[in-house]
Amino acid sequence: MGVVVAFEDKEASQGPGQDAGKARIETLVGLTRADMERVNAMILSRTGSDVTMIPEVANHLISSGGKRLRPMLTLATAALCDYRGEGHVKLAASVEFMHTATLLHDDVVDQSDMRRGKLAARMLWGNEASVLVGDFLLGQAFKMMVEVGSLRALDILSTAAAVIAEGEVLQLSVAKNTETTEDEYLAVIRGKTAELFAAACEVGPVIAEAGKANAAACRSYGLNLGIAFQLIDDALDYGGVASKLGKNTGDDFREGKITLPVVLSFRRGTDTERAFWRRTLQNGEINEGDLEEAQSIMRRHRALDDTIERAEHYAKMAKDALGLFPASPMKQALNETVDFCVSRAH
Amino acid sequence: MGVVVAFEDKEASQGPGQDAGKARIETLVGLTRADMERVNAMILSRTGSDVTMIPEVANHLISSGGKRLRPMLTLATAALCDYRGEGHVKLAASVEFMHTATLLHDDVVDQSDMRRGKLAARMLWGNEASVLVGDFLLGQAFKMMVEVGSLRALDILSTAAAVIAEGEVLQLSVAKNTETTEDEYLAVIRGKTAELFAAACEVGPVIAEAGKANAAACRSYGLNLGIAFQLIDDALDYGGVASKLGKNTGDDFREGKITLPVVLSFRRGTDTERAFWRRTLQNGEINEGDLEEAQSIMRRHRALDDTIERAEHYAKMAKDALGLFPASPMKQALNETVDFCVSRAH
Repeated sequence: MGVVVAFEDKEASQGPGQDAGKARIETLVGLTRADMERVNAMILSRTGSDVTMIPEVANHLISSGGKRLRPMLTLATAALCDYRGEGHVKLAASVEFMHTATLLHDDVVDQSDMRRGKLAARMLWGNEASVLVGDFLLGQAFKMMVEVGSLRALDILSTAAAVIAEGEVLQLSVAKNTETTEDEYLAVIRGKTAELFAAACEVGPVIAEAGKANAAACRSYGLNLGIAFQLIDDALDYGGVASKLGKNTGDDFREGKITLPVVLSFRRGTDTERAFWRRTLQNGEINEGDLEEAQSIMRRHRALDDTIERAEHYAKMAKDALGLFPASPMKQALNETVDFCVSRAH
Repeated sequence: MGVVVAFEDKEASQGPGQDAGKARIETLVGLTRADMERVNAMILSRTGSDVTMIPEVANHLISSGGKRLRPMLTLATAALCDYRGEGHVKLAASVEFMHTATLLHDDVVDQSDMRRGKLAARMLWGNEASVLVGDFLLGQAFKMMVEVGSLRALDILSTAAAVIAEGEVLQLSVAKNTETTEDEYLAVIRGKTAELFAAACEVGPVIAEAGKANAAACRSYGLNLGIAFQLIDDALDYGGVASKLGKNTGDDFREGKITLPVVLSFRRGTDTERAFWRRTLQNGEINEGDLEEAQSIMRRHRALDDTIERAEHYAKMAKDALGLFPASPMKQALNETVDFCVSRAH
């Protein structure tokens, strides 16, 4: 369930001289660069342990090139609210640890072999180590939050940890069920993806003591960005609107994951098509050419286009949520980030 | 918070010979007509009481021309799942009683003078009577549900009763707060409006023993239809896209209700415009020409268009939810009902 922004693809397809384009992440990266260096140093220092397997397992994943969008959002929303303290660095590191912990656990649950183009930690150190190092990171995350000393931030992030786990359990219960409704699927991704985005964005204004309305606005921004982000990821896993075969294309299909493009295709499909989805995703019988057939069915029912259209709805909500903040480079950067996340699918 | 479908307006604007049009409620009305006559008889018989004030107050509202869309949906979803029993009539009547009870209570909470073009019951019999007759109807609703004997249907409808009350309390807490986020507003209407639509649609397949997937599909249809319905109502209250002054135009504005067109306008607005919303909705200082000014601000920020666009997102979800049911006149009627609800705003 981990999600990695395909920054490189985007940069390549955009080319130089595209400064006028508003769908870019570079502005956010630039504005948070100085603080992110401190977050990265904090992350490295907090994975240390006398039990050498812990830093080995943790750093295998942590150094594997995730783009750290979530901690960047914590730094960005704190800055948006003129935060002047030091707590944002530890909270951002906590958010990344929570994310890393869920990735480690997800790979065990999903029996995944690969993660971010490398062997999954569980393939090198085993399932037990992946589960326990995930728990260790979660513990370290809570320690850092406590050090920051904001009870409200602690409340938000610990609630998020529970909600994420709840979302994962919900996903287990809908797993491989091709009859999953769109609402059920949305409940899953609200939990497993959007909640951490929401919490990451909410703690910024909270430690900045920026007031309830600003905290609610940033939370809403994060939640809806998270939903849009995951939906676009779902579409990309089948090649986006172009239905091309890319680096990670077909992972969800091979793992039998029910995502929105499948939900829509299944509901809009014929009996023959539904039998295809049941065979491949429910029963796991996948043959040569089935991924291409899946893409072809999706094209027939506009399932990828409509997944992207649904994502755009949440993207619009995310941008409207920030409306109350006065114009600033950071606000602009956060809005561009929304457009960037959606534009990945085009 | 009660919602009345403006059937007449629609018929008038559509004119004759529009059979090819798919945005119409007439097909649903036609297909449920026979059962609705039994529901209406049941409603009349169950408002009877030796305490004469009870049937007086209840029938004042019940006979005031609401279009009974919710009980129609219970009958329709039962029929969609080939229900052959008798329980749907009492469940449909229960749903309408629950709706009527919330209208009686809402008018007290909102201190409304009018309801469906007539004096509100509380203006004729007082607040106490409105509250207590609402409670009586809720009690009668539960009695009818128990008579049907489906524990699952009871569970669904009693849960809905609690969720609706929760939504109303949530609305109190966001009331007159112009900084309400879109997510907070959506949480309110999910509770106060969409939950009863969802429950009304879910009990049909449940008593038909049509299986979990069909119940989830109908629930999802109802929930998303309910959200779309309320958003369109919000837009209509400011005249829809035409921003015309109609029969009920401006009710929400005069009552200081925060609805999505206001949420969007406030977030997208200038400081001067935000001061306008605070003065009128938060402080309740409304002068001559303010409603027209509100409409003009909404036009400037495309707030009504975008409220309708947001509604269309939920409308699409509602229609996709029914995808698993084989083609039938009832399925067609339910899809047309979604389009009808959205098309009211154009």
